[in-house]
Amino acid sequence: MKIALAQLNYHIGNFSSNTAKIIDCINKSEKEGADLVVFSELALSGYPPRDFLEFRDFVDQCQIALLDVAKHCTNIAAIVGLPTYNKGEKGKPLFNSAAFLFDGKVQSITNKTLLPNYDIFDEYRYFEPNNEFKVIEYKGKRIALTICEDLWNVQDNPLYTINPMDKLVDQHPDLMINIAASPFNYHQTKIRKEILKKNAKQYKLPLFYVNHVGAQTELLFDGGSLVMNSKGDIVDELHYFEEDYRVFEMSDITGTGCNSYKESSKSEIASIHNALVMGIRNYFEKLGFKKAILGLSGGIDSALTAALAAEALGSENVYNVLLPSKYSSDHSVDDSIELAKNLNMPYDIIKIEDAVDAFENTLKPYFKNMPSGIAEENIQARSRGVILMALSNKFGYILLNTSNKSEAAVGYGTLYGDMNGGLSVIGDVYKTQAYALSRYINRNGEVIPENIITKEPSAELRPDQKDSDSLPDYEILDEILYQYIEQRKGPKELVGMGFEKTLVDRILKLVNTNEYKRYQTPPMLRISTKAFGMGRRMPIVAKYLG
Amino acid sequence: MKIALAQLNYHIGNFSSNTAKIIDCINKSEKEGADLVVFSELALSGYPPRDFLEFRDFVDQCQIALLDVAKHCTNIAAIVGLPTYNKGEKGKPLFNSAAFLFDGKVQSITNKTLLPNYDIFDEYRYFEPNNEFKVIEYKGKRIALTICEDLWNVQDNPLYTINPMDKLVDQHPDLMINIAASPFNYHQTKIRKEILKKNAKQYKLPLFYVNHVGAQTELLFDGGSLVMNSKGDIVDELHYFEEDYRVFEMSDITGTGCNSYKESSKSEIASIHNALVMGIRNYFEKLGFKKAILGLSGGIDSALTAALAAEALGSENVYNVLLPSKYSSDHSVDDSIELAKNLNMPYDIIKIEDAVDAFENTLKPYFKNMPSGIAEENIQARSRGVILMALSNKFGYILLNTSNKSEAAVGYGTLYGDMNGGLSVIGDVYKTQAYALSRYINRNGEVIPENIITKEPSAELRPDQKDSDSLPDYEILDEILYQYIEQRKGPKELVGMGFEKTLVDRILKLVNTNEYKRYQTPPMLRISTKAFGMGRRMPIVAKYLG
Repeated sequence: MKIALAQLNYHIGNFSSNTAKIIDCINKSEKEGADLVVFSELALSGYPPRDFLEFRDFVDQCQIALLDVAKHCTNIAAIVGLPTYNKGEKGKPLFNSAAFLFDGKVQSITNKTLLPNYDIFDEYRYFEPNNEFKVIEYKGKRIALTICEDLWNVQDNPLYTINPMDKLVDQHPDLMINIAASPFNYHQTKIRKEILKKNAKQYKLPLFYVNHVGAQTELLFDGGSLVMNSKGDIVDELHYFEEDYRVFEMSDITGTGCNSYKESSKSEIASIHNALVMGIRNYFEKLGFKKAILGLSGGIDSALTAALAAEALGSENVYNVLLPSKYSSDHSVDDSIELAKNLNMPYDIIKIEDAVDAFENTLKPYFKNMPSGIAEENIQARSRGVILMALSNKFGYILLNTSNKSEAAVGYGTLYGDMNGGLSVIGDVYKTQAYALSRYINRNGEVIPENIITKEPSAELRPDQKDSDSLPDYEILDEILYQYIEQRKGPKELVGMGFEKTLVDRILKLVNTNEYKRYQTPPMLRISTKAFGMGRRMPIVAKYLG
Repeated sequence: MKIALAQLNYHIGNFSSNTAKIIDCINKSEKEGADLVVFSELALSGYPPRDFLEFRDFVDQCQIALLDVAKHCTNIAAIVGLPTYNKGEKGKPLFNSAAFLFDGKVQSITNKTLLPNYDIFDEYRYFEPNNEFKVIEYKGKRIALTICEDLWNVQDNPLYTINPMDKLVDQHPDLMINIAASPFNYHQTKIRKEILKKNAKQYKLPLFYVNHVGAQTELLFDGGSLVMNSKGDIVDELHYFEEDYRVFEMSDITGTGCNSYKESSKSEIASIHNALVMGIRNYFEKLGFKKAILGLSGGIDSALTAALAAEALGSENVYNVLLPSKYSSDHSVDDSIELAKNLNMPYDIIKIEDAVDAFENTLKPYFKNMPSGIAEENIQARSRGVILMALSNKFGYILLNTSNKSEAAVGYGTLYGDMNGGLSVIGDVYKTQAYALSRYINRNGEVIPENIITKEPSAELRPDQKDSDSLPDYEILDEILYQYIEQRKGPKELVGMGFEKTLVDRILKLVNTNEYKRYQTPPMLRISTKAFGMGRRMPIVAKYLG
């Protein structure tokens, strides 16, 4: 039996485009002699459709699209993910389903049993868990079909009380197929392969795994669909961060010969880089925009954001605006110009002084002779924000936010100022990772000027300001933040790890009391196991470590 | 047996304050001769603690607080809500629990079975569902103790496959106790009473119901704890929107005499008003702030927000800033001054002209002779935003956002301009409801000047602009929005209800394509069954009705 894996990039709710893509691929697979073509989880709707699932009209559109796709499955079978109605009298109204299509019809529906409801996942919000298990018989083979999380309950301290494969294996399947929407983070690829390997070995079955690819706002799906033999060796894997398609002959895979396939071994930083570039590109493509605008400060964050955007959108589509104030150093402007020239990106220098002066004069009767402080610093950042948004509104650019995760964590940024933007490119990238990414971008020659990478970080909102005036070294800060945010370590555990108590208390308080700022930030491309945004849900009005 | 109901306002994560409050109330109940005092769901942590529950340190603090509370239960028993650890080998790490305390110790733990995971609820994200059922025996009585949602599965098309009370009733309980954190919306009080009545009648048992009260950022808990007899008649109910406490003698309740209690019958608008006032007040109190700032435009939304804030915080703590531009009409300023004077609120008039001119001059070389449009309108709104935030930063005010739900729905507002603020007071109030609320505020005499209520709505961002230039009448707009947002009607259903197709398509497209703006708005006090924010989770990059 020949099985095609179709790793495609879907657009949530765009039924005409998703359906056309799937039908094209069915036709291509048929021509290439495949018996079965497999698409990823919730392919017809795109993943995650979120609360669109509460609209009957939306779910109806999925059913209509499915019948349309089924008509094209006459000489070939297909497995397609979509939400379907729970026709029982009890439980949530929908299932997360995989339809098996053949002979122009829907032959059977397999529902997802294990519904992830942690981090960025909300599946139990919409779906009833499956509790019926049946293999699919097709062309003399018995297929154990599962959906994403269904294979993930093989770790210690299992999150769920059952394992769908434990039920299916009693029906003597010949192979496993898993359709997934498993988003990227820089630990995920390795973990995912380990989980899949455990399944192949435990159930002694070959596995065909089809993952979603492409960005859905902040969620970055990396693809990496793969085929494993029954010993858990990877036979082949599809590309990462791009659409891909491949046909496999099953008899080639069930053989127990040695595993000659060499897995791709991209570095963590290379993967983050590719994820972010895909994230920017898909965000613009799917919204129907071409051009980005951003403020270049002379610092590493905006430089890195510009370089990533240039790769994603083309240099000519990244408009850089330098917005110096009286506190900006000459090198900030020079370094930014050098960056723009290195990448051949358009740029302009627009001074904020007149706007800042106007605000300060307007406010003088109220501020009187109070010393200059945060309010005045924020006026500068917000004046830049107004100018960038005015250009964005006038010419149809999307403003890219350039804040990094370290800043976002401790609230080192101005709401309605440098925290503006349609998309935060590096909001899940710690400052120390921003340096590593910049070095990676310069791997074949200088793109980001060396001076931008080596200079001491500064917001340049007052004379001779340095980040280190108010923050610890980024190496220490980032480690504390990682342990607190990603690893959920509390203050006692952090002190136990050797960090100074007053520093720990100060940092954790900064993180917690700045929740209100992060509530209003743009979506951040997610590359870690715990990004700010939909995967981290915190009360604003609370008093814990704050 | 004498049972005290303690309806208190907790502060999430503030263990010292929550614990002290609970212990005070235990001591008071003991003095008043109560045998048992009942506190609401997750009282020790505050509700909802959200992802703080992923921190072992946070959950440990809850256990420590519980032992502290238990020590005070020597001659009296207490029921207290808190998260506890799931000590089993499988499943999620926590339970949503009610501890029964007596004799200075934790006597037993009862866990929640039905975990709401819809709208604003995420309980399945953290908690394992209970599957053990046991009544509590105390002083000769058998108590069927359940937690909030546990009693809610009595509707048609039940969401869950089991009913905890069906299990407990086999153990012949004498009474039901339910501890809850059931947030307000303007339909909820009625529905809640119906659900509780169904339970009392179905199980033929008296019911003691203790609800949370107070605001937790956007969530407004209305209290209304109550006692019902076994016929489902309300014997007594505690206050709404404030802390309350009352002791009941059980023998007075189990009697089947007639129900002489008259329920309070507040109007929908009065309840919304009280909810919003509590929302503002608690937001400030729990954050430790006293003073609010807001921009008064002369329109009804900012006037209503100011009046609500004055009631919540005291007139002297609401600083009103009038920020006229060259397009502002004289009556806008006059009406705003009249409002400020009616309520004796401080105000200033600060002109935005210099800032706007500075931006326009700065941008002239780039905008050239392009016609004035959205970009220029937004510069005005954003200049106001910068001034308000500068005053907020300088003097420690919290900026109140004044946008209504109709505007937020269709994206009629400027990001980083009038969409700024720490808290959106009327972001869940449709424009038509804003009129009704304003009339309610004027019920005993003019507070909001009549001219503000009767004038035609305008953003005053260009000459002679009216809301009706770009939006349909608010009566029609609000009805379409209500059917789409609250009732999840699709385009076909809306047309079937008699709305014009082109209008429906236009409105739904506006709602869906403005998701990106709402992603960055402040938290909105929730008064409806479907508010923007945590209860409505939509993809930004999607193509459905957009």
